[in-house]
Amino acid sequence: MKAKTSARYYLDWAATAIPDMSQVASAVFANPSSLHTEGRLAKETLENSRKRCAKVLGVAPETLYFTSGGTESNVLVLHSFLLRKGKGSALYSAVEHPSVRENCCVLGKFGIPAGVIGVEKDGRVSEKTLVKALEKNNNTRFAAIMAVNNETGSLMDIKSLVSLVREKQAKTGIPIHFHSDLVQAIGKIPVDIGSWDLDSASISAHKLGGPRGIGLLYLKKNMETLPAGGEQEGGIRPGTENIQGALAIAEMLEYRANPETLTGEMEEASKRLNYLIKNLKKIKRCTLIPEDREEGDRRFSPWILQISFSGIPGLVMVRALDDLGFAVSTGSACSSVSLERPVLAAMGINESARIEGIRISQGWTTETSDFDAFLTAIEKVLSSL
Amino acid sequence: MKAKTSARYYLDWAATAIPDMSQVASAVFANPSSLHTEGRLAKETLENSRKRCAKVLGVAPETLYFTSGGTESNVLVLHSFLLRKGKGSALYSAVEHPSVRENCCVLGKFGIPAGVIGVEKDGRVSEKTLVKALEKNNNTRFAAIMAVNNETGSLMDIKSLVSLVREKQAKTGIPIHFHSDLVQAIGKIPVDIGSWDLDSASISAHKLGGPRGIGLLYLKKNMETLPAGGEQEGGIRPGTENIQGALAIAEMLEYRANPETLTGEMEEASKRLNYLIKNLKKIKRCTLIPEDREEGDRRFSPWILQISFSGIPGLVMVRALDDLGFAVSTGSACSSVSLERPVLAAMGINESARIEGIRISQGWTTETSDFDAFLTAIEKVLSSL
Repeated sequence: MKAKTSARYYLDWAATAIPDMSQVASAVFANPSSLHTEGRLAKETLENSRKRCAKVLGVAPETLYFTSGGTESNVLVLHSFLLRKGKGSALYSAVEHPSVRENCCVLGKFGIPAGVIGVEKDGRVSEKTLVKALEKNNNTRFAAIMAVNNETGSLMDIKSLVSLVREKQAKTGIPIHFHSDLVQAIGKIPVDIGSWDLDSASISAHKLGGPRGIGLLYLKKNMETLPAGGEQEGGIRPGTENIQGALAIAEMLEYRANPETLTGEMEEASKRLNYLIKNLKKIKRCTLIPEDREEGDRRFSPWILQISFSGIPGLVMVRALDDLGFAVSTGSACSSVSLERPVLAAMGINESARIEGIRISQGWTTETSDFDAFLTAIEKVLSSL
Repeated sequence: MKAKTSARYYLDWAATAIPDMSQVASAVFANPSSLHTEGRLAKETLENSRKRCAKVLGVAPETLYFTSGGTESNVLVLHSFLLRKGKGSALYSAVEHPSVRENCCVLGKFGIPAGVIGVEKDGRVSEKTLVKALEKNNNTRFAAIMAVNNETGSLMDIKSLVSLVREKQAKTGIPIHFHSDLVQAIGKIPVDIGSWDLDSASISAHKLGGPRGIGLLYLKKNMETLPAGGEQEGGIRPGTENIQGALAIAEMLEYRANPETLTGEMEEASKRLNYLIKNLKKIKRCTLIPEDREEGDRRFSPWILQISFSGIPGLVMVRALDDLGFAVSTGSACSSVSLERPVLAAMGINESARIEGIRISQGWTTETSDFDAFLTAIEKVLSSL
């Protein structure tokens, strides 16, 4: 399916990608826990899928666990802290996805205080904001910082941030678990879980063009998770394993996250986004978020852009553009109806400007001509509102 | 796909069904939380699937929540008790699936004691065993009793058991949440969630011939669940909704759980199983579990049969039959490698007999001639061991 279908333009790839592959055909159906021939074949298929994912991600197969998606991967890691003795506190960046932010708050109900890591005006956690949060929360045992923000495209320098946390850890002797939500990063920007030295990471298939209901959890070391029942996935994630899903995510990762495809796709995406940014800057009522975002700005993912139009609430703009055939969003689809914009608030953007924000997110089938059409539509909306 | 493929006989339908339908074709792909046309269409498709499921199950659409499967549905209900004040204790039947039994034990780690409801020799919770458990645990706030046991096919009289719990509740004034794992019941035996007066219930698609990674949670009343993040599924189950999965489970329920199909399928299954039981009784070394299970025995589901062969460990029998082309199992696939058989132990079966147990579970494409072949294979194994 193309980004343009029946005169529609889909520019909401950060919410979900247009599936670019039909279901993986496979006659394997049995329960991988069954001991018979069919079961063993299912187990083999599952483990082979895990190896394929591991190869693309450059990690050991035994560090990957199939889950139902990015949210479940985040929840598994966060809730596992409910089982720990000597709990300490948890830190999360102010721009985390709700499935990290809100589950950190769940920890608070069980006596594990959660603190916030602030961000700079560009929406990025800096060494300075991280150090400040660590100093304020001396007993930190857990830190969650996403690699790419889903609303603004802000890129975090995960490698430096992890090494800063490791320094702190070496000084105090208290281990800090570093988790990163990679949902908007995998298949979009170069990721190196191993050299970044993450303790855990979350991945979703449907953001890569794969099916719903399948994701991965990376765990450097096996850890006890809260859900019990069935010894599937090394006891980390109970429930009959989703073989077709495992095959699909392996295929999607091989297709989308291999370095050659990725580099090419990213270059193309950058070129297209630079064209869009250059032209948006010519529109007086348009403000980039943050204001100083430039063409080719290396602080941001080329796949996601947040902008606002003065005097036009984001929800109004989303609807006006929808009427003209364009699918865009305000912030996260996971909190689409809410007028709260915690990510923009964390960046110091004032309330009136926050409600004007809209997100444009592109994908691998987006074309520069789609952005031409989009710019025309914007002009049309602006002249009518 | 037929039960017989390339000279193989699949008799492990309780672990998972042979998928009898190809993937549901649908071009709907967007995130149902997105506000644009594509998102609204996805939302509409999701809600329409929910209505279709609700109609088959005879419940209100707003009581059904899509999950990733039976295990997650059980976990969501059980872990929700971690958020309650005035916790009391939890009861679960001694023959529950590991995803119920073990998560009840997780509650114990948080100060919610879990007690066991015993079963009779036929593996069924009786009014007597339930009353005994309730008396022993005077502060019961939660009770989990499955409708059909996955290892023996024991049928519980859920309606009577719920009404007994309601009587107790009326006397003490302490509400008791009654949960039932319906994974082996839906599409296999008549189920009436509403008239049974359940508070919650779990359903899985892949046991019905649908895909992995999709299930349902029934909740009479909305309740706070542990995972947070995203307001999907009424806040009960966060994560981008699995549209294709929702379509598939709706289709499977309409196909498998409608009264006409179900009655016919069940009658056929009974006839086939009666034939098998009659002939197994002629084999000296074979014992039915429980011993007094009869042809047409209304205490059991016609889809599942547990038997043992004296002097032959179940795992040896499973492998010998596998070599002859038959896929059967010992107990639950979720704990296939374990030699523990808590379900059989709860029925008072001694240790040496427990390890001899094997499970035969049939499906809608099983034929009587498959059982003829199976009986011949059994004779062959017995003469060689």
